[in-house]
Amino acid sequence: MDFPWDDLALTFSHTSMFPFFDFAHYLVSVMAVKSQPGAVALAWKNPISSWFTAMLHCFGGGILSCLLLAEPPLKFLANNTNILLASSIWYITFFCPHDLVSQGYSHLPVQLLASGMKEVTRTWKIVGGVTHANSYYKNGLIVMIAIGWARGAGGAIVTNFERLVKGDWKPEGDEWLKMSYPSKVTLLGSIIFTFQHTQHLAISRHNLMFLYTIFIVAIKITMMTTQTSMTFAPFEDTLCRILFGWQPQFSSSEKKSEAKSPSSGTGSLASKPSDVASDNVKKKHTKKNE
Amino acid sequence: MDFPWDDLALTFSHTSMFPFFDFAHYLVSVMAVKSQPGAVALAWKNPISSWFTAMLHCFGGGILSCLLLAEPPLKFLANNTNILLASSIWYITFFCPHDLVSQGYSHLPVQLLASGMKEVTRTWKIVGGVTHANSYYKNGLIVMIAIGWARGAGGAIVTNFERLVKGDWKPEGDEWLKMSYPSKVTLLGSIIFTFQHTQHLAISRHNLMFLYTIFIVAIKITMMTTQTSMTFAPFEDTLCRILFGWQPQFSSSEKKSEAKSPSSGTGSLASKPSDVASDNVKKKHTKKNE
Amino acid sequence: MDFPWDDLALTFSHTSMFPFFDFAHYLVSVMAVKSQPGAVALAWKNPISSWFTAMLHCFGGGILSCLLLAEPPLKFLANNTNILLASSIWYITFFCPHDLVSQGYSHLPVQLLASGMKEVTRTWKIVGGVTHANSYYKNGLIVMIAIGWARGAGGAIVTNFERLVKGDWKPEGDEWLKMSYPSKVTLLGSIIFTFQHTQHLAISRHNLMFLYTIFIVAIKITMMTTQTSMTFAPFEDTLCRILFGWQPQFSSSEKKSEAKSPSSGTGSLASKPSDVASDNVKKKHTKKNE
Repeated sequence: MDFPWDDLALTFSHTSMFPFFDFAHYLVSVMAVKSQPGAVALAWKNPISSWFTAMLHCFGGGILSCLLLAEPPLKFLANNTNILLASSIWYITFFCPHDLVSQGYSHLPVQLLASGMKEVTRTWKIVGGVTHANSYYKNGLIVMIAIGWARGAGGAIVTNFERLVKGDWKPEGDEWLKMSYPSKVTLLGSIIFTFQHTQHLAISRHNLMFLYTIFIVAIKITMMTTQTSMTFAPFEDTLCRILFGWQPQFSSSEKKSEAKSPSSGTGSLASKPSDVASDNVKKKHTKKNE
Repeated sequence: MDFPWDDLALTFSHTSMFPFFDFAHYLVSVMAVKSQPGAVALAWKNPISSWFTAMLHCFGGGILSCLLLAEPPLKFLANNTNILLASSIWYITFFCPHDLVSQGYSHLPVQLLASGMKEVTRTWKIVGGVTHANSYYKNGLIVMIAIGWARGAGGAIVTNFERLVKGDWKPEGDEWLKMSYPSKVTLLGSIIFTFQHTQHLAISRHNLMFLYTIFIVAIKITMMTTQTSMTFAPFEDTLCRILFGWQPQFSSSEKKSEAKSPSSGTGSLASKPSDVASDNVKKKHTKKNE
Repeated sequence: MDFPWDDLALTFSHTSMFPFFDFAHYLVSVMAVKSQPGAVALAWKNPISSWFTAMLHCFGGGILSCLLLAEPPLKFLANNTNILLASSIWYITFFCPHDLVSQGYSHLPVQLLASGMKEVTRTWKIVGGVTHANSYYKNGLIVMIAIGWARGAGGAIVTNFERLVKGDWKPEGDEWLKMSYPSKVTLLGSIIFTFQHTQHLAISRHNLMFLYTIFIVAIKITMMTTQTSMTFAPFEDTLCRILFGWQPQFSSSEKKSEAKSPSSGTGSLASKPSDVASDNVKKKHTKKNE
């Protein structure tokens, strides 16, 4: 039974992302651009600006990885085939008569399929980033983790920066307290693949790629069908307690508001109701009623 | 008659920009810095900051091109001759007794001559950018167009970013809807020279440089003497209609305001009066009264 | 007597910054991060973000130098030993029970020792930057000065930019009028070491390193013990008078306010009381009452 599994994982790891998986990734990215307020009007007024924004969404992770490794950030423009595919998808999505693409995309099965295939490309990006970084800095663990993370989920940084420069977005301090789900799951993947690459994990790469991909695709589809969001809070709580101990109590001058609730332990953190909902609030789920 | 023309164009294409054309470019750039509110006071309070701003204006296109190709953005500081020339112009412009330089520059013939010579340097920068990009990415058309564009008109991005970081400028969403005249004419030149370089256009480089330079210098001088601004709107309208079809009607929630104006066509976009004046509003001239 | 001095300076110049001097630099940097409002709460909520901010403070100068020379800005992450040391200091500072590190650091002798040792690392960074830039651009004086300056005092730019992107800081135009003391003293050092490196100064490197280090350490300790700030105003005044002549009088529309003060000279600038306190106001001490 191992051999068919091994063959399956090996075949899977050799699959090319082009054209179908890349198509799905570009489609999801362009639809994300289109859903921003005023995007369609912008596409008619200044198609070049709209096209550029769409390219940043499609290739943002690679651009960030290039910036961090001092490679030309325009490198993605030299890949004529992928640029042509992404540009065609942008063109058809924004300018198709009767908005057929958006209508087709509004059906849940189509969204599930496209998002699932986009998640597959995430694995490939992480692996590509880790391998590429290792060619620069042999056994530079943190660099490999950083580049894998940047390639897999760094596009959000690039697109947020573009919106910041355009005046469409003002950063609020709070946003940096919360890491999004894609960011966390990509960081986890990047750490795992880095340790596998430096032979600290006794698993072959193709098996790990297969397992990780199944994991993230399953979670993504579950989240979309059940309309819930994934939280790593229990794991984060445990990890933080091991690494950092009990969180001290912060005075109201340190925190914006306090919600009183009984707890046990040497100290704990009162929290805002919105913080409870935050993915990255680690200590808030460990209160015990007295 | 062709031979004298050919010789003229060939001789023209071999002209060095240093020192006279570069002088004119630096003079126009430094005068642009000086015309900003508070610039003279800043030069006395913090000459280093003022000098740095002037250098960004003089070499901004090259800096942006370096950033995009992952070359050291400080490369321009290694060119001692040009830095010395630009610094001298900054020094004399800001600190000349009785402000002689500004008084001399206030005469229209001087401005016409300097601006015309600055336009000549635009051609050289575009050609240099296209050639340089081709050495990195052979036949990477989009990269060549982007680098030619960056070198010829990218300085505005670098200087706007410097003002953004200094707190002197806040980007408004609307600015990105409108491309300035230098930006458009440089993009046009970059596309033309790229296609010439990759032998898609059957014209020699020196002839194209000569024709393009005459074109942009003539337009610049006409704009300055008649106090009008150049608009590509008819060409943009036609191009957009070919590429994108008729613009759909946007609801008032999508657009900030509506201005009714008579036109022909099956559908069109209502527009703000300021949009009508905008260079980059393509579809606003095709509305049909119902 | 020269020989023991020479040996002392030579031995001093061969001292390795790792681990003790680097330890002091990281400690001062991490304590600076910790003193920012909300930093401790952030460390508990999002340790990764807090760790990253601390690393930017510790390695900011090197990161800026990499960006200016188009080297990978992530290069500092490949230096496992220094990253481990800096991360350990961050960990112990933020998460030590009873906040022992902060309590220990609150004693003046500890601060003096750490700050003095941090100033020693400044010399090493400037020298390293100048030498490194020379390997890129032989005899590129301005590049060498810029890279020495960036390495020695550029961290503030990187950390301010990070706060700008996070929304914690809004740049005001005025900040760019005033260069901080570390910035000025590093620029001075960078210029001196550049001229020494290109053999324009007849002094050996190890002697210059020794003298410059004694100079900056002495000033730093004096400033901390006497609670005063160092000003180069008299030297700046003289230099500006030599280079730029007498400062013209600015109308109240050019300047924000005027403060009358007696002085001598043919013409001068009225100034705000806060400007008088500013390090970088050069001409304000030369007003003559009429």
